Amino acid sequence: MPNKPRMPKPQRQSRRVGFAVVGLGELSAEEIIPALRTSQHAYLAAVVTAEPDKGRAYAAAAGLKDSDAYTYEEFGELAQRDDVQAVYIVLPNNLHREYVERAAEMGKHVLCEKPLASNTQDAEAIVKACRDAGVKLMVAYRIQYTPHHWAAKNAIAAGKLGAIKLMDSIHTQVEDDPSVWRLNLEQAGGGPLPDVGIYSLNTLRFLTGLEPEWVFAAQHQPTNDPRFKEVEESVSFMLGFPGGLIANCLTSYGADKTTTVRVLGEQGTAVLDPAFPYVGLKLRLIDKKGETTPSFPDYDQFGLEVDHFAQCIQQDKEPYTPGEEGVQDHRLMDAIYESARSGKRVEVQKVAGQDVFRSTDNLPRQIKAGG
Amino acid sequence: MPNKPRMPKPQRQSRRVGFAVVGLGELSAEEIIPALRTSQHAYLAAVVTAEPDKGRAYAAAAGLKDSDAYTYEEFGELAQRDDVQAVYIVLPNNLHREYVERAAEMGKHVLCEKPLASNTQDAEAIVKACRDAGVKLMVAYRIQYTPHHWAAKNAIAAGKLGAIKLMDSIHTQVEDDPSVWRLNLEQAGGGPLPDVGIYSLNTLRFLTGLEPEWVFAAQHQPTNDPRFKEVEESVSFMLGFPGGLIANCLTSYGADKTTTVRVLGEQGTAVLDPAFPYVGLKLRLIDKKGETTPSFPDYDQFGLEVDHFAQCIQQDKEPYTPGEEGVQDHRLMDAIYESARSGKRVEVQKVAGQDVFRSTDNLPRQIKAGG
Amino acid sequence: MPNKPRMPKPQRQSRRVGFAVVGLGELSAEEIIPALRTSQHAYLAAVVTAEPDKGRAYAAAAGLKDSDAYTYEEFGELAQRDDVQAVYIVLPNNLHREYVERAAEMGKHVLCEKPLASNTQDAEAIVKACRDAGVKLMVAYRIQYTPHHWAAKNAIAAGKLGAIKLMDSIHTQVEDDPSVWRLNLEQAGGGPLPDVGIYSLNTLRFLTGLEPEWVFAAQHQPTNDPRFKEVEESVSFMLGFPGGLIANCLTSYGADKTTTVRVLGEQGTAVLDPAFPYVGLKLRLIDKKGETTPSFPDYDQFGLEVDHFAQCIQQDKEPYTPGEEGVQDHRLMDAIYESARSGKRVEVQKVAGQDVFRSTDNLPRQIKAGG
Amino acid sequence: MPNKPRMPKPQRQSRRVGFAVVGLGELSAEEIIPALRTSQHAYLAAVVTAEPDKGRAYAAAAGLKDSDAYTYEEFGELAQRDDVQAVYIVLPNNLHREYVERAAEMGKHVLCEKPLASNTQDAEAIVKACRDAGVKLMVAYRIQYTPHHWAAKNAIAAGKLGAIKLMDSIHTQVEDDPSVWRLNLEQAGGGPLPDVGIYSLNTLRFLTGLEPEWVFAAQHQPTNDPRFKEVEESVSFMLGFPGGLIANCLTSYGADKTTTVRVLGEQGTAVLDPAFPYVGLKLRLIDKKGETTPSFPDYDQFGLEVDHFAQCIQQDKEPYTPGEEGVQDHRLMDAIYESARSGKRVEVQKVAGQDVFRSTDNLPRQIKAGG
Repeated sequence: MPNKPRMPKPQRQSRRVGFAVVGLGELSAEEIIPALRTSQHAYLAAVVTAEPDKGRAYAAAAGLKDSDAYTYEEFGELAQRDDVQAVYIVLPNNLHREYVERAAEMGKHVLCEKPLASNTQDAEAIVKACRDAGVKLMVAYRIQYTPHHWAAKNAIAAGKLGAIKLMDSIHTQVEDDPSVWRLNLEQAGGGPLPDVGIYSLNTLRFLTGLEPEWVFAAQHQPTNDPRFKEVEESVSFMLGFPGGLIANCLTSYGADKTTTVRVLGEQGTAVLDPAFPYVGLKLRLIDKKGETTPSFPDYDQFGLEVDHFAQCIQQDKEPYTPGEEGVQDHRLMDAIYESARSGKRVEVQKVAGQDVFRSTDNLPRQIKAGG
Repeated sequence: MPNKPRMPKPQRQSRRVGFAVVGLGELSAEEIIPALRTSQHAYLAAVVTAEPDKGRAYAAAAGLKDSDAYTYEEFGELAQRDDVQAVYIVLPNNLHREYVERAAEMGKHVLCEKPLASNTQDAEAIVKACRDAGVKLMVAYRIQYTPHHWAAKNAIAAGKLGAIKLMDSIHTQVEDDPSVWRLNLEQAGGGPLPDVGIYSLNTLRFLTGLEPEWVFAAQHQPTNDPRFKEVEESVSFMLGFPGGLIANCLTSYGADKTTTVRVLGEQGTAVLDPAFPYVGLKLRLIDKKGETTPSFPDYDQFGLEVDHFAQCIQQDKEPYTPGEEGVQDHRLMDAIYESARSGKRVEVQKVAGQDVFRSTDNLPRQIKAGG
Repeated sequence: MPNKPRMPKPQRQSRRVGFAVVGLGELSAEEIIPALRTSQHAYLAAVVTAEPDKGRAYAAAAGLKDSDAYTYEEFGELAQRDDVQAVYIVLPNNLHREYVERAAEMGKHVLCEKPLASNTQDAEAIVKACRDAGVKLMVAYRIQYTPHHWAAKNAIAAGKLGAIKLMDSIHTQVEDDPSVWRLNLEQAGGGPLPDVGIYSLNTLRFLTGLEPEWVFAAQHQPTNDPRFKEVEESVSFMLGFPGGLIANCLTSYGADKTTTVRVLGEQGTAVLDPAFPYVGLKLRLIDKKGETTPSFPDYDQFGLEVDHFAQCIQQDKEPYTPGEEGVQDHRLMDAIYESARSGKRVEVQKVAGQDVFRSTDNLPRQIKAGG
Repeated sequence: MPNKPRMPKPQRQSRRVGFAVVGLGELSAEEIIPALRTSQHAYLAAVVTAEPDKGRAYAAAAGLKDSDAYTYEEFGELAQRDDVQAVYIVLPNNLHREYVERAAEMGKHVLCEKPLASNTQDAEAIVKACRDAGVKLMVAYRIQYTPHHWAAKNAIAAGKLGAIKLMDSIHTQVEDDPSVWRLNLEQAGGGPLPDVGIYSLNTLRFLTGLEPEWVFAAQHQPTNDPRFKEVEESVSFMLGFPGGLIANCLTSYGADKTTTVRVLGEQGTAVLDPAFPYVGLKLRLIDKKGETTPSFPDYDQFGLEVDHFAQCIQQDKEPYTPGEEGVQDHRLMDAIYESARSGKRVEVQKVAGQDVFRSTDNLPRQIKAGG
């Protein structure tokens, strides 16, 4: 099944929200720019990258003018582009803070890739900068915008699995190239944990709406592998949620690609496997009566995400995953690393309530899909 | 998993083969044009459609100039476009002949959607026109270019299933809109058979390399459904191959989307399910030792197809699926309809040998994938 | 998951129906006797076989006395066994008639393995003999007694798939031993068709409740294979049901084990795969909302069957699958063979109505499972 | 597919090893006794249970004499039964020690259900008693005797997954009845951990052949659930193996039935799901070339187990899973409970080498299946 229309239906840009994509790596080229070009509420207005040639080539390929391509030095010139209402930050993690702060100063709304920053302090500074400037900030947690994950969340909330008892999630992949910034501690802020492990962490928090009270973790960093000179290869972490609910998670840059989530209730089970790829997600809901695999109309995960943010801007609403949602993951990842270093269980600040870091009065439209 | 890069890597067009896409329906917009834009050996040079505005919009969206958009009246002007070496015909079936003949006269090579025409006579005329003009003709049978189908063909040829005894294939979908040209007898030349049933027919011929010797068929055309005033709703057909090998096929415009192929050997089974969608094909090879599901690097079916034809042009070789391959399907569909009308088994011209209508000295590169 | 309790819960035999199992092949040893030993409403009271030693060994193993083992010559002595109320005929097809007639004369109720006989005439004689003697006759169509098949039938009847348009079923296996009675024309009455193909035929009739109006068939009988000197290796048959509903079926003794049923409706699909083994059946119901795989408490197919017949005897009711249901399959198999021989479509006696050969006022309890 | 012959093929008991089954719960009735009755090398010679009536009923049902049924008081009389060479202990965990010691004193070989005892001290005493008496002792770890688990172990050992990086296993089920001995701390020695969690622990040790160096665990024991007055409801435990290999495990008596094992290597993955039921195991081996699901001839897990032990007796060899293998699980479960109580990571005695607690010179025959 074709995943989505890959050619824009030519239509008016008026009323749609113009985005500048900042950073032209694979994710921008293969997912974000195509998503913006087929979005209902957003469109690609500009690109920002290091090399002028590359920028102009991408602009042309996307039907933009040469003058829509900016270098990082020219980033400030976006201030004069009234048609650029928002920036989508797709940079190495340690650059997020600088570019979000500059965008906020220019009055641009900010959609920022996860993790929000390379450390908690920067993440908090990002939230403050956007708040002070009065611009919107959304963390690009795409799994909080898919019909599959919402169907799982809704089934849990509706009690279809009974009381939730245990959870398990794995997100691993093999990172082959020792030179990528993701293996550089300063640029990434960590290894697989902030890059792929964060999906397990964020998804389990999202599905239950609960926040962990303690964590335990162990990590492995081989001594003789050039890829893992600065960051860990693997992390295993356990999360203690309120009410005795416990979750196990595995993440790695050294193990075969795996993306799973399993939520075990008293009366049923929800399994997402695969849980995190861009297309081909599969949800199974299992109970005594059997197994159900819901299907949904084709969708583009990045399209849903940018459409949500564009509508937040159009309607002046808070994004479902605001900056605070991203800060919380950073606090938890700090605790995970602390536990892995100390070998001790680490208590974290208790947070009572449901979905406390999310804007529950502005649910993405996808919620209906799982209704 | 992302199915393919959806943004072209900006690169030189020199040496690649320029295509004009003739007809801008959904298939062109969502599959063929994106495939041409990411092809290694081909590129989109022009579009031809009825409405000038639509043509210019698509041209712009694809990074072409206004002058690269032609109306059907202006089709002949392509003669002056040296950079347009090939046309890809994506028109209603009854228009294939006219446009192939005009293209051939202009010296353009022709890639034509299946079925080759709306009847056998036109299909034969198309083959003759291209032969007379000395241009290449390829029928766009995409299943003869995928690694999944080649892996099945290779497993059969290598004897991994033992002697092949029986086959079964289903291709059905629901056609909702009574106004589409596919439900117009004159334009389509038939109902689901030449549109989707042809996949079963063509795939079973391809997988075994054999040609049927007789057919039996039954069809159903409801009397009170506005969609099926002119064409049948469903056809069931049985094919008798040499050596007592029998195949059953079902096709319909009125039944839930299904795409399967099953080949039963003495010692094993090959199942393609789904067998025919653009992405997400699944092949299972089953024998006494268990079940194997081969996986392949991501590929784009239309990209593989246009790349094959572009290379045939560059290297002056005959396409793997030349016009004769398309004529044979028309002859068999004629026999199927004749049997459905008469209620009698219909003998067809015996064709001895393996892959007689295919250019076995110019196998598509995908063959290696299933090696 | 254990399929069923394999040790009888020791309990009283009073009120349960005593069965004599006639024929001690693999099916009796591995399925029928264990089922009788764990049945709620039936119990094993006697065995009948050719060799006295074998009979006594089986009797002992089943907790019976030496005197509960009979030879075929002693079959008539069962007349004096008031505790034997029913016989279960598990003999070569051509012996069914003789033993059913003798049992009926003795006033024993008869549960007879499928096919009911080795030809239509014998099948009709069997029905007459039981009717004349006033004993009950049930054909052991186990698929009409499983929760999985009933769930499919109920989903179809409830319109969950929309109008049914097309069906497809395959039942093949490899018969290795040239000496088995199933390959002897006189004993079996045919090849794979009456043995395994009958499952496809009977299941499609059961699921829709409809009767075919015409058939077309082709068969293959290799000339050089010692197994197929007398009977065909494969049969492909097409069935035309009322309202334009068409079904394709494949059966073989020479192709890899396969057991599938697929029912295609306008709005959904039911797939049974595997459809016919003793354990491990899987039903998938597919529609636009997704796919559901119902699960059921463990059950024993032969246990459900013998329990139904035992209850019919206890409550003086007609079995859900009486002899007439078996005669109808023979008539249709006659037509299938006639078509295979003549190469012509064969019309069969039209039978209007739903489930006309079944006792719809005595549904097996399993119907609730699929409710 | 039928899982196994359920009727014994009547054959001589001479040379087969006679077993007394001690304890007649569901496991004995539904699995162990049927397995002994169809075993190649073992046979059921006696049963031991509390109630004389029940014992005689089971004896009769199994074709034994009244005098083959013993009460626990009469257990010592087995000393005079030369035909009883082995006992199979299927009692509450805290009774294992007493009955193993009495059996050993009588010179009977002992096959003991897992866990070996209700605590480490008893487990060690059991090993000593058997060693002192010169009888063989085998722990009934059935997963170390299945072709599926051996195929996984062999694939790992052969390097087919590359270096193993992470593992994950879940074994949960809902225990409904508050009165079962498994929820009684004294009788069971713990909750789900020694009953079902032990499968995860034992399987991961078996698959890798390695021993954990540290554990971390968390458990949940609800305060208001009558089932969990004495034992925990759930345990999550993490295991640190040599070389940085980490495993996560979940076990519970309060969560939906789940049985999985996942082994993640650098180049591939092995998934057992379901991993632990008596029938229907499924192994998937995944690598870049695709996914393979090996199949095996039908087998009975308990039959393979008792046959292995019977052959050890016949050939005077050490069982593959001797008592020491069971003691090691007890030591690790002690550490898991200690960690759960303290909230601290617990180091365990390092054990270098491969399969150190197994008799690698007496591999069960099943190893070939996965070769």
